Amino acid sequence: MSMTADEIAEYLAFAEQLADAAASAIKPFFRAQLDVEDKGGRLFDPVTLADKAAERVMREQILARYPEHGVLGEEEGTTLGKSRLTWVLDPIDGTRAFITGLPLWGTLIALNDGYRPVVGVMNQPFTGERYLGSHLGSWCNGAQLKTRNCHSLASATLMCTTPDMFDTPEKSAAFKSISSKAQLVRFGGDCYAYCMLASGFVDVIVEASLQSYDVQALIPIIEGAGGIITTWDGSSAQDGGSIVACGDPSLHAEIVDLLKHAN
Amino acid sequence: MSMTADEIAEYLAFAEQLADAAASAIKPFFRAQLDVEDKGGRLFDPVTLADKAAERVMREQILARYPEHGVLGEEEGTTLGKSRLTWVLDPIDGTRAFITGLPLWGTLIALNDGYRPVVGVMNQPFTGERYLGSHLGSWCNGAQLKTRNCHSLASATLMCTTPDMFDTPEKSAAFKSISSKAQLVRFGGDCYAYCMLASGFVDVIVEASLQSYDVQALIPIIEGAGGIITTWDGSSAQDGGSIVACGDPSLHAEIVDLLKHAN
Repeated sequence: MSMTADEIAEYLAFAEQLADAAASAIKPFFRAQLDVEDKGGRLFDPVTLADKAAERVMREQILARYPEHGVLGEEEGTTLGKSRLTWVLDPIDGTRAFITGLPLWGTLIALNDGYRPVVGVMNQPFTGERYLGSHLGSWCNGAQLKTRNCHSLASATLMCTTPDMFDTPEKSAAFKSISSKAQLVRFGGDCYAYCMLASGFVDVIVEASLQSYDVQALIPIIEGAGGIITTWDGSSAQDGGSIVACGDPSLHAEIVDLLKHAN
Repeated sequence: MSMTADEIAEYLAFAEQLADAAASAIKPFFRAQLDVEDKGGRLFDPVTLADKAAERVMREQILARYPEHGVLGEEEGTTLGKSRLTWVLDPIDGTRAFITGLPLWGTLIALNDGYRPVVGVMNQPFTGERYLGSHLGSWCNGAQLKTRNCHSLASATLMCTTPDMFDTPEKSAAFKSISSKAQLVRFGGDCYAYCMLASGFVDVIVEASLQSYDVQALIPIIEGAGGIITTWDGSSAQDGGSIVACGDPSLHAEIVDLLKHAN
């Protein structure tokens, strides 16, 4: 059963409150010199004081307001709730953008109803942009978002955070088979690229090695703007992994057909 | 003979006036749906209405104020002046960033005294950032810029707009030999990355296939902040080509030693 419009409005408003709290925790650290830890993954994956402080304050607010809800966060892992509702948090998606000073990182907040993410927020405090999505539609700072039509890869603008994110030769080759056919390719983007896709400036994003908290908030934003986001084999994107997002569903079908055997 | 502080101040103030005029010409087109032309180069190189309109208005203002000065612009080429002074203009550096909605493009304005660029401006109207540089120092919105120390590539943050910009296998291999030794690599950035280097958040940028108008405005900004920017063989960067910029001069020496035979 989908949520009512009143429930969506309540949870979106609360997600915005979380975004404000995270922004206050993060802002003093953006463009300050940070101590950077290495989590020890294959890619250099910095964890900042800002990341930890922002997740802490969001968890405290969720516990105070909705003590029965679960929380899944990048920094502190999973806290099971009595309710089927779970908040999925990535305080700073795009930590490399963050530490290099680029305003392309964002705070990602999703509410999952036990089946799928139903509310999503991407907040970028330096540019002052807040992207919101649900089945009722997607908005940025009051302007409704709509993906654009793009019927073929040959006329598509493709984004990907880095060509180094494909962790097997097969995935790397699959990415190249897609990117080499696109009209224009741009690297670097993180969550911001998905919001540009929802806004109608990017046609396709092909990525891999994503976590659930990297992607859950972006699903309602893209779907609410008319786009589609799945794994490379066309399944639900909510658990992360290898992801393809398109503004035009017909382009998505073409690309999944090319990628489905590479997953 | 270097310019006096009064001359620098006069030309910086005029360059800021040009930046304002360019921003007014460009802003209506940012995040609008654009008609994109392909100049027919190897890389997809879009030229927008905004690019043309901004160069036009800057040329008109230069002609009115300094009719004896020369102008070198991306869109309209070179206009020789009676003076040794030449304005070097790139109305929208980072056209791929621009058309994908990312706020990493910038308007680049340099004044070359016949020997070198002596004044440089990078203006980003969406984020409201204006980077200024000369031999008197570099500033962003009133805050003085200072590059950071970084003595070895192993602890360096490296940026590059795209791994596709290296137009020979030798250059591509040379880039990989550097990037594989860096602590962190981030693609996507255009002129904005050079300003992050001047601000002390990025340690090294290695790029190729740059034009003089892509790089001249950035030279005073980087040098005024304590950094160094040259070609891969350590010569002046003002004619473009294969470029390396470092915040720490000792790191620059290490990298030029690795790159000088690949140029």
